[in-house]
Amino acid sequence: MPTRHSAIGVFDSGIGGLTVFRELLKILPRESVLYLGDTARVPYGSKSRETVLKFSTENVLFLLRHDVKLIIVACHTASSFGLPFLEKHFKHPIMGVIEPGVETALATTRSGRIGVIGTQATVGSEAYLHSFSRRDPAVKVTQAACPLFVPLVEEGRLNDSITRQVAQRYLKPLIRARVDTLILGCTHYPLLKRTITRVMGPKVRLIDSARQVALKAKGVLEGLQLNTPLRDGGAPLRRFFVTDEPRHFEALSRRFLRQRLGDVSKVDVAG
Amino acid sequence: MPTRHSAIGVFDSGIGGLTVFRELLKILPRESVLYLGDTARVPYGSKSRETVLKFSTENVLFLLRHDVKLIIVACHTASSFGLPFLEKHFKHPIMGVIEPGVETALATTRSGRIGVIGTQATVGSEAYLHSFSRRDPAVKVTQAACPLFVPLVEEGRLNDSITRQVAQRYLKPLIRARVDTLILGCTHYPLLKRTITRVMGPKVRLIDSARQVALKAKGVLEGLQLNTPLRDGGAPLRRFFVTDEPRHFEALSRRFLRQRLGDVSKVDVAG
Repeated sequence: MPTRHSAIGVFDSGIGGLTVFRELLKILPRESVLYLGDTARVPYGSKSRETVLKFSTENVLFLLRHDVKLIIVACHTASSFGLPFLEKHFKHPIMGVIEPGVETALATTRSGRIGVIGTQATVGSEAYLHSFSRRDPAVKVTQAACPLFVPLVEEGRLNDSITRQVAQRYLKPLIRARVDTLILGCTHYPLLKRTITRVMGPKVRLIDSARQVALKAKGVLEGLQLNTPLRDGGAPLRRFFVTDEPRHFEALSRRFLRQRLGDVSKVDVAG
Repeated sequence: MPTRHSAIGVFDSGIGGLTVFRELLKILPRESVLYLGDTARVPYGSKSRETVLKFSTENVLFLLRHDVKLIIVACHTASSFGLPFLEKHFKHPIMGVIEPGVETALATTRSGRIGVIGTQATVGSEAYLHSFSRRDPAVKVTQAACPLFVPLVEEGRLNDSITRQVAQRYLKPLIRARVDTLILGCTHYPLLKRTITRVMGPKVRLIDSARQVALKAKGVLEGLQLNTPLRDGGAPLRRFFVTDEPRHFEALSRRFLRQRLGDVSKVDVAG
């Protein structure tokens, strides 16, 4: 069983979860973190629930073999489809990125009109809608799928006129619904903050759940008394595992992490 | 060992290979065809050579278990990275989509200036460059990667102003190189023919290798005396296998096949 000295395990369909990783380093600087990016099978956002569940389960099993004490599902699609299933079947604490975003949005909105953008799968799963209606049935939630945002980010077109036009089309229903708060429901979208703000206007608050996820992880570890002790001598480990060759991951990581990666290894998680 | 009555096996990273499937039905109407789309792990075009080789080998092994007599690699990325490897290791006849496109382009060009567009992986592999320089070192080949074309097609934005602007940027080096012939080096690109013609101008000939691939398959089968006999009584079989749930494949297939699919089954090919 894991101890206080075990690592936190994070998995994502690819590279986007590094935004969560970055916040973990800030908020839990003494914790060791293992990151798994399923870069051979990315993306998840255009795939079915069954396939995303299978891949997510394989990712969890891989992290468990590395003796982690908490698993964070950093991918919104995997959280939307998979979290209830994973929580039900595994004993280890597992958390996703949907609830922290919903909590932050509810604490932020004044008008009660909230927008959610994500992949086709995340939007189709209605995980956000269910979470909001459980917590506050009075809020009005408007969703939009933005399938081109991920390829645009991966091509580096962060502030490009094409990206702005794509954003204008996708975000139209959210502008029309006059949301005052918008959840960026995919780990790639925080990189488009400038473009999204230009389209939505400066008054709409954008919710990037990465920081909230890290804060919640801190609370969970403290609650379970699994946080690394203050006076722990060893330097925390940071390891990266990917299912495709590391090159592309390493190259793209600078866009997400703004610092150099440590050790990146290729692994096979398919079962 | 396969007989004249065995099927032709076709695999693709996803749905695009249906353009090849369609031409096979026209040119070899009596042949049974099995189609495998690796929709759980699509796309291949942003992944490494090693991963594409692994996936391609698994796809070939799956088709061999179904007693096919010829394997067609309908995916340009898999053909670029994998064909020499697959031909070297498997006894069955295997053909790809690069050579038929190159042959057609050489028979078409007048100026000797040829363009090739494809995924990041296909362009980076230089498979087209090597094939041209083996056959005719005098032709001048200009390549461009078009990573957003596949997501734009899958979103159905075939004649959209955003797609046109993306095409204008990607195709600029080909216009500058004054190519008179352009190979559509990805199975999704034929669906963008109108937009590409608008950008390149009506005089540039677009090469969609699907028809040429089917003609070559006919020649290969006849050469090996493995073609289905003229007076064969049974109706040819057409079966579709996908690695993700069939729904999305079935929905998108209309865009590629312009007719209803037969039986689609979900299978696991990972190994």
